[in-house]
Amino acid sequence: MLSLVDLRTRIAAGTLDPAGAIRLAEVAIAARDPGIGAIVSQNPAPAIAGSGPLAGIAVGVKDIIDTADLPTQMGSPIYAGWQPKADAAIVARLRALGAVPLVKTSTSPFASHDPTATVNPRDPGHTPGGSSAGSAAAVAAGMVPLALGTQTGGSVIRPAAFCGVAAIKPSFRLLPTVGVKTFSWALDTVGLFGAGIRDIAQGLSLIADRPALDLDAAPGAPRLGLCLQDFAEAPDPDALAALHRAARAAEAAGARLVDLVLPDPLPEAWAQHAVIQDYEARQALAWEYAHHRAQLSPELGEQLDAAQDLVAAQYDAARRAAHRARRALKDLFGAFDAILTLSAPGRAPAGLGTTGDARFNRLWTLMGVPCVTVPVPGDGLPLGVQVVARFGDDGRALAVARMIEHALAA
Amino acid sequence: MLSLVDLRTRIAAGTLDPAGAIRLAEVAIAARDPGIGAIVSQNPAPAIAGSGPLAGIAVGVKDIIDTADLPTQMGSPIYAGWQPKADAAIVARLRALGAVPLVKTSTSPFASHDPTATVNPRDPGHTPGGSSAGSAAAVAAGMVPLALGTQTGGSVIRPAAFCGVAAIKPSFRLLPTVGVKTFSWALDTVGLFGAGIRDIAQGLSLIADRPALDLDAAPGAPRLGLCLQDFAEAPDPDALAALHRAARAAEAAGARLVDLVLPDPLPEAWAQHAVIQDYEARQALAWEYAHHRAQLSPELGEQLDAAQDLVAAQYDAARRAAHRARRALKDLFGAFDAILTLSAPGRAPAGLGTTGDARFNRLWTLMGVPCVTVPVPGDGLPLGVQVVARFGDDGRALAVARMIEHALAA
Repeated sequence: MLSLVDLRTRIAAGTLDPAGAIRLAEVAIAARDPGIGAIVSQNPAPAIAGSGPLAGIAVGVKDIIDTADLPTQMGSPIYAGWQPKADAAIVARLRALGAVPLVKTSTSPFASHDPTATVNPRDPGHTPGGSSAGSAAAVAAGMVPLALGTQTGGSVIRPAAFCGVAAIKPSFRLLPTVGVKTFSWALDTVGLFGAGIRDIAQGLSLIADRPALDLDAAPGAPRLGLCLQDFAEAPDPDALAALHRAARAAEAAGARLVDLVLPDPLPEAWAQHAVIQDYEARQALAWEYAHHRAQLSPELGEQLDAAQDLVAAQYDAARRAAHRARRALKDLFGAFDAILTLSAPGRAPAGLGTTGDARFNRLWTLMGVPCVTVPVPGDGLPLGVQVVARFGDDGRALAVARMIEHALAA
Repeated sequence: MLSLVDLRTRIAAGTLDPAGAIRLAEVAIAARDPGIGAIVSQNPAPAIAGSGPLAGIAVGVKDIIDTADLPTQMGSPIYAGWQPKADAAIVARLRALGAVPLVKTSTSPFASHDPTATVNPRDPGHTPGGSSAGSAAAVAAGMVPLALGTQTGGSVIRPAAFCGVAAIKPSFRLLPTVGVKTFSWALDTVGLFGAGIRDIAQGLSLIADRPALDLDAAPGAPRLGLCLQDFAEAPDPDALAALHRAARAAEAAGARLVDLVLPDPLPEAWAQHAVIQDYEARQALAWEYAHHRAQLSPELGEQLDAAQDLVAAQYDAARRAAHRARRALKDLFGAFDAILTLSAPGRAPAGLGTTGDARFNRLWTLMGVPCVTVPVPGDGLPLGVQVVARFGDDGRALAVARMIEHALAA
């Protein structure tokens, strides 16, 4: 994989220049993408900044995020060839830092659950996950060192785990969603994919202009809550084994682990995620539903059909449940520095019929708390574990994730 | 003015049909707009639904809100002729109800503070206020019975007061902002203008699909906190006199009024509004700033220049201050059903050099609570008073506002 930290180090040392770093990405894309299908459009002659903290960093941008120089097609024939006027806020920020938004990456239609044609770079017989399929696959295949995704259920953490890359879904609205196609305004969160934890930490700290997010210091002896999310259906045995491996590695590195069963308002909120998501999606995609119902992908079309029956009272009750759960979770973080849990129910499913299940991601998206997925080394298709911290404590989530990443490599 | 309630009543009675009601708006626009300049584009041959709860209701849509059949030009030469792909969520909802988004209305550039060329229908030598200038003026001049605006500081309540119409800035995100150009995602709120309180209550209840918002019942003997917002500079004497007139009228109608001085976290939050607004605006308008700085309007350009120096720590501190204030305000509403305060510091200023001052609006926008402005009958340019209720209690704000409207008419 292309490492953001490594490229920046080489550029700072003068052994690589920004144009050369972009060329590395272009060569990798030409070599790898024909067999993967992660890229939906590419700037053939990008302007390359000679300086800036992210100069030389090629970025993959999920194709629901507006770009002024490339179409934004939402993974849907409804938006075929659609050219927005302006860059999304996050894209403008990347350019200001010197980065090159080089490619748009494949997305499930409107970041829904329906699959894309992208395959998993680790095994083309398997899904890369979704909805940020192309961003996860492009990083995993070494095409770009940084990619943007979005998560409404589990659309950043799950594909990252399936593809064996690091990713963060930051605290809600740490990264701006202006210019990002809305599915659910209470849930949609922009996230980052990179080769390792240090790469996403550097990327996030620069993009968010918060140097403290890229901590060099180890987190000491963090108190970690080991959480199985047993309100969701049980995970596959190998996902559970990977979680326990990560837990033992963290303990060996000095972390203190305690089993954590989430108390009642949290499972209740988890069960309400879909009500909030679908009630808002019905409004956010009202134009597409009214004018292009037949062109919507099958699962999204049915999801929106069903959402027409939701009423405001259900939505309000779901929001109150989420509010209660956020307060309960805040209290829990008095006893824990972070929660260690599953990133996905198992490895990437076979075939391209499904993008996998977001049931271990939804609660945290609804809570708005930072989530980092750490690849767990091993045979076969990748597995990941998820580190969750309190709202606004993205730096701690990254520091604990890096500790686990190191411990697993040892 | 065209009254939404009156038009719906006549259509239901069969004495007017939807096409006839739209024709009334078209005739009024042709007659009045040349002297006012509220309209920036108009659908010359709109599809008119024969049925639906808002059939026959012509709507003015602030020109930062996307429409699939009319350009959305943001009040800025940067977006001259720009045609979005889709309707904003709120526009799609209006169409689903049978309404006709007939015209786009003038807006300050990107809903900022710079003036438009629109004049006040009550006196062309005065501003109609901003940033939702055209929507307030179009309703005041009897061109449309319903118009959409947005408020980030005071951009709905203030122009409504200056133009002598009723308006509501609902609870934060009661109406969807999908497809509305962002200035500040924590603040931007879609609001409604109408001839009277009943008109905006019916409109809001239908658009939000919440029948309880359109209460027929009087609010009994509401406890009202009479609030001068004395942390802001003092209002003009005639604005203060209008507030006291409204208070006496409410008392005569059965309300119990108590002087309310807002305790400390609230003035502190008020003072932090600009930090949140400008830190987010810098991100939301990053593309425009990077590529079209010279085409930005003067005040907005300077505002964004200054915003470049804001740092994350200031933004975080401002958000914490707002969070503390929201909790304090929630507690206050244990003792009050609603707050009665100023809608603006005075009557519409002379000339078009300024859109007026939002200092009596900013706190409530930041708190996310529902605000309704009630015109106060009298000589000269209009004055309004503002009714504020707790978050989510938009129905109560409207009921109290209607009580005051009736009492003032008596």
